Amino acid sequence: MKTLNTVPFVSVENMMRLVLELGIETCIEQIAGYIEEDFAKWQQFDKIPRVASHSREGVIELMPTSDGVDYSFKYVNGHPKNTRDGLQTVTAFGLLASVETGYPVLMTEMTLLTALRTAATSAVATRALAPKGSTTLALIGNGAQSEFQALALKKLCGISKVRLYDLDPAASQKCARNLEGSGLAITIYSSAEAAVEGAHVITTCTADKQYATILSDNMVGSGQHINAIGGDCPGKTELHKDVLLRSDIFVEFPDQTRIEGEIQQLDDDYPVKELWQVLSGEVPGRESDDALTLFDGVGFAVEDFSALRWLRDALQLTGRFVDLDMIADPDEPRDLYGMVIREVERMANERAAA
Amino acid sequence: MKTLNTVPFVSVENMMRLVLELGIETCIEQIAGYIEEDFAKWQQFDKIPRVASHSREGVIELMPTSDGVDYSFKYVNGHPKNTRDGLQTVTAFGLLASVETGYPVLMTEMTLLTALRTAATSAVATRALAPKGSTTLALIGNGAQSEFQALALKKLCGISKVRLYDLDPAASQKCARNLEGSGLAITIYSSAEAAVEGAHVITTCTADKQYATILSDNMVGSGQHINAIGGDCPGKTELHKDVLLRSDIFVEFPDQTRIEGEIQQLDDDYPVKELWQVLSGEVPGRESDDALTLFDGVGFAVEDFSALRWLRDALQLTGRFVDLDMIADPDEPRDLYGMVIREVERMANERAAA
Repeated sequence: MKTLNTVPFVSVENMMRLVLELGIETCIEQIAGYIEEDFAKWQQFDKIPRVASHSREGVIELMPTSDGVDYSFKYVNGHPKNTRDGLQTVTAFGLLASVETGYPVLMTEMTLLTALRTAATSAVATRALAPKGSTTLALIGNGAQSEFQALALKKLCGISKVRLYDLDPAASQKCARNLEGSGLAITIYSSAEAAVEGAHVITTCTADKQYATILSDNMVGSGQHINAIGGDCPGKTELHKDVLLRSDIFVEFPDQTRIEGEIQQLDDDYPVKELWQVLSGEVPGRESDDALTLFDGVGFAVEDFSALRWLRDALQLTGRFVDLDMIADPDEPRDLYGMVIREVERMANERAAA
Repeated sequence: MKTLNTVPFVSVENMMRLVLELGIETCIEQIAGYIEEDFAKWQQFDKIPRVASHSREGVIELMPTSDGVDYSFKYVNGHPKNTRDGLQTVTAFGLLASVETGYPVLMTEMTLLTALRTAATSAVATRALAPKGSTTLALIGNGAQSEFQALALKKLCGISKVRLYDLDPAASQKCARNLEGSGLAITIYSSAEAAVEGAHVITTCTADKQYATILSDNMVGSGQHINAIGGDCPGKTELHKDVLLRSDIFVEFPDQTRIEGEIQQLDDDYPVKELWQVLSGEVPGRESDDALTLFDGVGFAVEDFSALRWLRDALQLTGRFVDLDMIADPDEPRDLYGMVIREVERMANERAAA
């Protein structure tokens, strides 16, 4: 698949085409499988808190992890004011490398791949925690992540009805339009209260960078499952604290979630359970039909790792990459300088041939 | 120079050609200028210790930093056993991004660029610390970094005579051959003792990953300047402790050098001076003609930052890059999904046109 000095690179265009060729729902389902596989061996991972560089305008983060065989990191920024200038709030790319050699083996855009893995993670959590027979999803916040969430929960959790609500009706209309033909029954609601009432699963994926109360205590009832995935940095939450206090709370990696997730509103030692423990059977998930369960998802490096592993394997089928000449490969490792000066001859030969 | 969704990428081939077009010595001299500029505003940098993922076979590191305007990181591995399998011990690539938007603005190979910036940093230190009128360099360890060190000290510090020593005579011969025509008078020595005796400047750049004694106390005298740059990870040093105890020691970033540098052999509070303080005039460099000065260089993220800034500017002149389609750029930021499904039409149009 690769020579020594090149690294396969998946562009945005190639990622879109790969995803379309395999089918979006199939990709999400496959990624969910990789996530479950990796969460099952959670203890083997080198879990490094993300390395953040904060500025007045936003944050740039590196999210590395490794299971001792593969190593991955994601570069991701968050700049809420970017949209003002026609730029994306978030851009991302990532890399997979071999732990044995340290050589990069895959580089890829990760804006789209992150959307897929975020949806896959919500589906993994929902499958483990939601009431049996859940069919109705209330989707609060109908931005860039919303369609992926809906399709993931359709494919993996049996959701067939989706209720949309967004402060901006245009966002809900966009989401409804995009999901036409997906097989989901879509209804746009004019209030969050109405959308969540009686829904089996609630996913909040709003984007404001501030403490917000998307769900207040009177809005949610027993027997519901909430995926709160829009609160993902310090100072940004979506749920009223009272909702947290009567929920069974499940998180990815407590060290990170206590800083970035909904539970930043709670004491540092407030008890939470870890999703990997549920998946491995170490702790129970939903304990009764009328429990209120909450997956406080912030996005963790292991999920990116799983998504990168999936992509590496998917490339074997689709070939949707180009080779980047990124690794200096002198004939003699100690002769880097010689490699450079011998390039003079190649340049001269090319000129002569031209 | 770039559209919103692409990132300029400098391949190994383009880096070699850019360096040859500008001239290796000119590149090193220019990078040294950027390093001095950045070291002069040292306090403005967000200095994050490198983020390392260790394994039995080696280490993979991310080295981020930022001055509040630009952000950079380098990916670099160190796998001493790689050469056994015809692979490089070290591969590296790096990225420059805008702090204001979080958008990557440059991605590049960094094996060659690191060699250039390492040589430039030694030259910056040597220019500040070596005895006036230094002309003779003893170069101990004649591997991948050696030619770059020799040329940097020629161009920036007036070195005209280079004495080579390596445990492996073939390495010295390779180095001598590569430096033919450089204007340097080259002599190969059969012992380190003989090579360093009477030299004005000594640079050690050996590669063994273990405590080694390349220089013992009886070998070095007053009035010399040492660049010890081969010891760059825990457990890897080149100088006997007694040499350190009678040197004036200068380092890049004490927090990192105490872990990785020669001074890992000394107490944690052993006094050292910082190179940036010398460059900014805050502390004296060489205090007398017969002082023994030591630059304990391990390579710091700010130097990579400087090298990436230089490359960005150099690309304006040479155009030696290709554009990578790395950033998802939907027409409507909230409509990532719509961007994907509209790609179906483009694919169909391409098929129709074919």
